[in-house]
Amino acid sequence: MSEAIQFLPPRPSVLARRDTIISDLLDLLPPECVVHEARALVPFETDAFISYRRLPLAVVLPKNTAQVAAVMKYCHRAGIPVVPRGAGTSLSGGAIPQEDAIVLGLSRMSRIIELDYANRTATVQAGVTNLSISEAVATDGFFYAPDPSSQLACTIGGNIGMNSGGAHCLKYGVTTNNLLGVKMVLVDGTVIELGGKHLDAAGYDLLGLVCGSEGQLGIVTEATVRLIAKPEGARPVLFGFDTSEEAGSCVADIIGSGIIPVAIEFMDKPAIEICEAFAKAGYPLDVGALLIVEVEGSEAEMDATLASIVEIARRHGVKTVRECQSATEAALIWKGRKSAFGATGRIADYICMDGTVPLGKLSYVLEETSKIVERFGLRVANVFHAGDGNMHPLILFNANDPEEAAKAEEAGNEILKLCVDAGGCLTGEHGVGIEKRDLMRHQYSDAELAQQMTVRAAFDEGWLLNPSKVFPLEGRA
Amino acid sequence: MSEAIQFLPPRPSVLARRDTIISDLLDLLPPECVVHEARALVPFETDAFISYRRLPLAVVLPKNTAQVAAVMKYCHRAGIPVVPRGAGTSLSGGAIPQEDAIVLGLSRMSRIIELDYANRTATVQAGVTNLSISEAVATDGFFYAPDPSSQLACTIGGNIGMNSGGAHCLKYGVTTNNLLGVKMVLVDGTVIELGGKHLDAAGYDLLGLVCGSEGQLGIVTEATVRLIAKPEGARPVLFGFDTSEEAGSCVADIIGSGIIPVAIEFMDKPAIEICEAFAKAGYPLDVGALLIVEVEGSEAEMDATLASIVEIARRHGVKTVRECQSATEAALIWKGRKSAFGATGRIADYICMDGTVPLGKLSYVLEETSKIVERFGLRVANVFHAGDGNMHPLILFNANDPEEAAKAEEAGNEILKLCVDAGGCLTGEHGVGIEKRDLMRHQYSDAELAQQMTVRAAFDEGWLLNPSKVFPLEGRA
Repeated sequence: MSEAIQFLPPRPSVLARRDTIISDLLDLLPPECVVHEARALVPFETDAFISYRRLPLAVVLPKNTAQVAAVMKYCHRAGIPVVPRGAGTSLSGGAIPQEDAIVLGLSRMSRIIELDYANRTATVQAGVTNLSISEAVATDGFFYAPDPSSQLACTIGGNIGMNSGGAHCLKYGVTTNNLLGVKMVLVDGTVIELGGKHLDAAGYDLLGLVCGSEGQLGIVTEATVRLIAKPEGARPVLFGFDTSEEAGSCVADIIGSGIIPVAIEFMDKPAIEICEAFAKAGYPLDVGALLIVEVEGSEAEMDATLASIVEIARRHGVKTVRECQSATEAALIWKGRKSAFGATGRIADYICMDGTVPLGKLSYVLEETSKIVERFGLRVANVFHAGDGNMHPLILFNANDPEEAAKAEEAGNEILKLCVDAGGCLTGEHGVGIEKRDLMRHQYSDAELAQQMTVRAAFDEGWLLNPSKVFPLEGRA
Repeated sequence: MSEAIQFLPPRPSVLARRDTIISDLLDLLPPECVVHEARALVPFETDAFISYRRLPLAVVLPKNTAQVAAVMKYCHRAGIPVVPRGAGTSLSGGAIPQEDAIVLGLSRMSRIIELDYANRTATVQAGVTNLSISEAVATDGFFYAPDPSSQLACTIGGNIGMNSGGAHCLKYGVTTNNLLGVKMVLVDGTVIELGGKHLDAAGYDLLGLVCGSEGQLGIVTEATVRLIAKPEGARPVLFGFDTSEEAGSCVADIIGSGIIPVAIEFMDKPAIEICEAFAKAGYPLDVGALLIVEVEGSEAEMDATLASIVEIARRHGVKTVRECQSATEAALIWKGRKSAFGATGRIADYICMDGTVPLGKLSYVLEETSKIVERFGLRVANVFHAGDGNMHPLILFNANDPEEAAKAEEAGNEILKLCVDAGGCLTGEHGVGIEKRDLMRHQYSDAELAQQMTVRAAFDEGWLLNPSKVFPLEGRA
């Protein structure tokens, strides 16, 4: 895919003014906040999507909202594209720069501003990592719910941009369900606030609109998020099945019965083997598919919920039910799951799709996914958030073989189209970025896409913010 | 307030063409779908806000999305304002027509299209009443969570327009948290679909934006909503306190401890007396403030949650704790609460604000509310969704006394400003409508308001959809 990546053509007038622009930025910001030497730009040349690299014009790392506003005001006047960046962990290429763009990194804005337990909120700067919010409130018995696998590194600003999810979002929702307010710098440098500590707001829900808009509507500099009380206890339980089909229909039946566990994660045989080899998590190796179902609450509640789940699993021919006996064992189970991408990366190159489907279609989509990948002569491992239908097929290939890489990309595109055709959507949590940009026409009608782009223009008429992402490059107004 | 209500000036060209317009509408729709005789227009001249009446140009009652699209296409070309209407239960004047507008009523589109338990969704036409969704799935053990007091009458389309809430939204969220997808007709008649049965969508969250946009971005004709499994059991419990302050700080402590009951409703002494006299719900009359706290789950879970709540309530000097002994008693407790507005209407005219505040400010805002109302020589009854800080002061006055009516309005405005100044917002569930339109400047900066209006223009450049609502009339672009 790296060969094929297109960006909007660079603006020659911007490229020609590079020296002036850097000197102007140095007037606006302290010197340590402006990165412009080629060597120093290298860490910003790509993200976690694929090995595609391009140096940006410059990088700014502001320390506060006023500095972000100054940069945006300047770039707006000067017509310079801006690519916002959190930790650069995007799996869809959301933070990949372009050569005429300034990367605006939020990493220096990593302060927790306020913890307010009476309102169960944390207000933080956008560069705070996801996990550090939970860490800051852990001893008081709270946590922040969305938990992307990259939570050690990824920032809340990036999470907001992509409306990130995670294994525990089945019960608690994704980022948009846990975000109460933001401070945001508009493209012209104006600072606005959306939402707050209250549940709803008067007027339009611009906060909901901004969440998941991939840095195209403004630069979020501060966020107020919902804190949740840690449950009395939590218990991940392993359910092993002979086939993926049994496991898939079991998931649909659990949710269809109205039970909402904290998490239902799915692994097929290749995924189990890869993760077990890496993490020694104690996954059963004699099964064809594995569900990790986490329940929480008091011992009695967990027992009662589990009993109902076991009964449903029995109807779907469950082979192994294994409750973990200790916190260490529970941590290992999650370690295995959360290191799935890293573990896969040790044995092959891979691309990971995150199409999402209605639960009733889970087994069908898994089966069709296998057929698609087989047709291209490739292998696939499935490890995903089954409870909310958020598929993660990892398509394995050899990146040094351009033909195989092209096949992997094509297979991935077919799988995403399959998800859409099954009544689902292109992305459950990773965002559109560059990766799924050209598939947007498969999900949306021309009128729907036009309406989204008109809304975009209501924030950024000149397409300065992260311009080459989300929408197909052809046919832009 | 009725004296002071302003609309955008009627378009003379529209008024002059009334006969042609009606004849054109009769070409587009079956005759029974076009209402134009003065007498037949009367039921559409106002809503549940205040006794302000104005006849619209005509009313159309389409039977399907295609007919809605035909009407919109026509009105867009002809430059005719359109006021969408569900059941007309708006408390903020959201459905009050203007004389140059066509009221587009969705009442004939009241079909439940699909129940899909595997995905826990119901797909319905926009004119379906809120309660009838829950009724349709009750025997299968499910319900639709948001429950406005008007749920017997109000429609899901109206709920989406106002992002409606209800007593049980503390645990399950308001409309936006339970809405998965819509079919919507744009101002020019184009039909688009937003969301679906899946959790998230690629591209911008236009669904979230549409929810709460008060009919200004398009006409929702179908909705897919989340169904929730009925809990094993549910139990409302009464907690009586000597003072509103004790009750208010108890609420903040319950939520601050991380417990999320299904509902925490608050009544002060005047509200208790009014509701008890009407519903004979068995509320204690010797207390100064009452909380209705509902817990749910198995008997063991309810016992455990209640024990924690009782312990917190004791720390705040709770005087009476009364668990109900039967389903009949539980129903009575809720009947008393849900009939609060009707019961109040029997003894006085009232206006009801729905400002929402951070929980830490509950007691402060209650106290200041009393002071404000006293200053105007009026009385107030408070009955509201305390768990999410959604205040409902009912300001009592005599509508036949214009001076008192003006005072009530002024007091209401001061209370809403108080809510905003306490870190809250103008409306938790009733919407801005006409009522709070001019207070939007108190909540939002010029830049924030301008951004909302630019987004509006991205859907409806000519301000045809519900044009006199939500934004101050002065200074519109």
